[in-house]
Amino acid sequence: MVETSHPGNIGAAARAMKTMCLYDLGLVQPKEFPDPVAFARASGAADILENAQQFGTLTEAIADCQNVVGITARNRKLSAPVVTPKQLMQQMLNDSEHHQAAWVFGRERNGLSNEEIDLCTTVCTIPSNSEYGSLNIAAAVQILCYEWHVAQLETQYEAFKDSPPPLKSLAPVGEKEGFYEHLWQALDKIEFLDKDNPTPLMRKMRRLFDRSQMSSAEINILRGILKNVLKQ
Amino acid sequence: MVETSHPGNIGAAARAMKTMCLYDLGLVQPKEFPDPVAFARASGAADILENAQQFGTLTEAIADCQNVVGITARNRKLSAPVVTPKQLMQQMLNDSEHHQAAWVFGRERNGLSNEEIDLCTTVCTIPSNSEYGSLNIAAAVQILCYEWHVAQLETQYEAFKDSPPPLKSLAPVGEKEGFYEHLWQALDKIEFLDKDNPTPLMRKMRRLFDRSQMSSAEINILRGILKNVLKQ
Repeated sequence: MVETSHPGNIGAAARAMKTMCLYDLGLVQPKEFPDPVAFARASGAADILENAQQFGTLTEAIADCQNVVGITARNRKLSAPVVTPKQLMQQMLNDSEHHQAAWVFGRERNGLSNEEIDLCTTVCTIPSNSEYGSLNIAAAVQILCYEWHVAQLETQYEAFKDSPPPLKSLAPVGEKEGFYEHLWQALDKIEFLDKDNPTPLMRKMRRLFDRSQMSSAEINILRGILKNVLKQ
Repeated sequence: MVETSHPGNIGAAARAMKTMCLYDLGLVQPKEFPDPVAFARASGAADILENAQQFGTLTEAIADCQNVVGITARNRKLSAPVVTPKQLMQQMLNDSEHHQAAWVFGRERNGLSNEEIDLCTTVCTIPSNSEYGSLNIAAAVQILCYEWHVAQLETQYEAFKDSPPPLKSLAPVGEKEGFYEHLWQALDKIEFLDKDNPTPLMRKMRRLFDRSQMSSAEINILRGILKNVLKQ
């Protein structure tokens, strides 16, 4: 949860998680935490608040993750593929044994920034009323956790279902960010970046390379190429 | 909602309903209502609170309904058939007679009484953690309303079913081959290619970029980059 304003929402999110067997809560610069209001709303899920990890930035919070899912109500241009919660759970079930995943929930008032969305490998939007789609953040957490729990239950009773081939080993976000930083430098050097407005190009590059689900070995090759470009 | 103790939960339930296009809220002997806390938590769903009907008994509240669904966390003996939310929505969608339906949510502390459950034609239990299944009541309202909204969308749009998102428009092979030829030249120029054995690297590049399913527009950007590399 990124920069949550109201401690009650953190507590309600913890309760939502625990009811659906999810336990690892990460908080990026919460406005007020720990706070008695959070514990009151958490009800029997105080343990999740006690074990919640706090981070200074989203990048730190997701450094170990390969799958980073931004939960957003808004339509985003040039974002990662947008999936529904049900589609997301199918993706995650196909991958759950292989990769560390995080769901990223934004601020109550204005959600996630474009820069934060850029860190995500998938964007998930909860279908809602086109005239009033403003879900409370803990309600959104509840829906995602519920869908995950139900999706897992469904697989337990469908043990004979053909499983898709496992995904290959993905590079963690920290390595990917290192690559994008390196790519920026190289594009700058060859004067391909629009210095006044470099973001659209970099965002397109992110979408392109994120879709390819790079391994650590592939990132090393790409960074070798960039190193040679910078040497020219 | 039967004898809800906390007005905040009534407001949160109203918000949950409106986000999923449900509007008719009935309150059976709420402890505190109307109340400013309810309106604060309702956020943009104040209209639902303003139009909420109040009743003295559950029997009065459901007098016009043919389908009455009790939402309960507990296992009930001798109750109506227990369904999951997804099963419930299928039943409701299949109700060709279009009967008037009500979902009945009980008290925060102890849910619905056996007598109230006896008034229900169906009982629905949200799958949850067997060790801590205590959902907040507004969170339970959110899940039910969400499932109803999604079930309706699924009947309208194929896209909401559990299928992967549609592929974007892919570049034709000729364009991709032009890109790989161009990439070869650039890698050669920056002296990254092993001249004696360039094939393994080019094969890795192909695998990487093929996985990302490039569009024609993306190939044009990438070739722009390569052109600048060759100009250095």
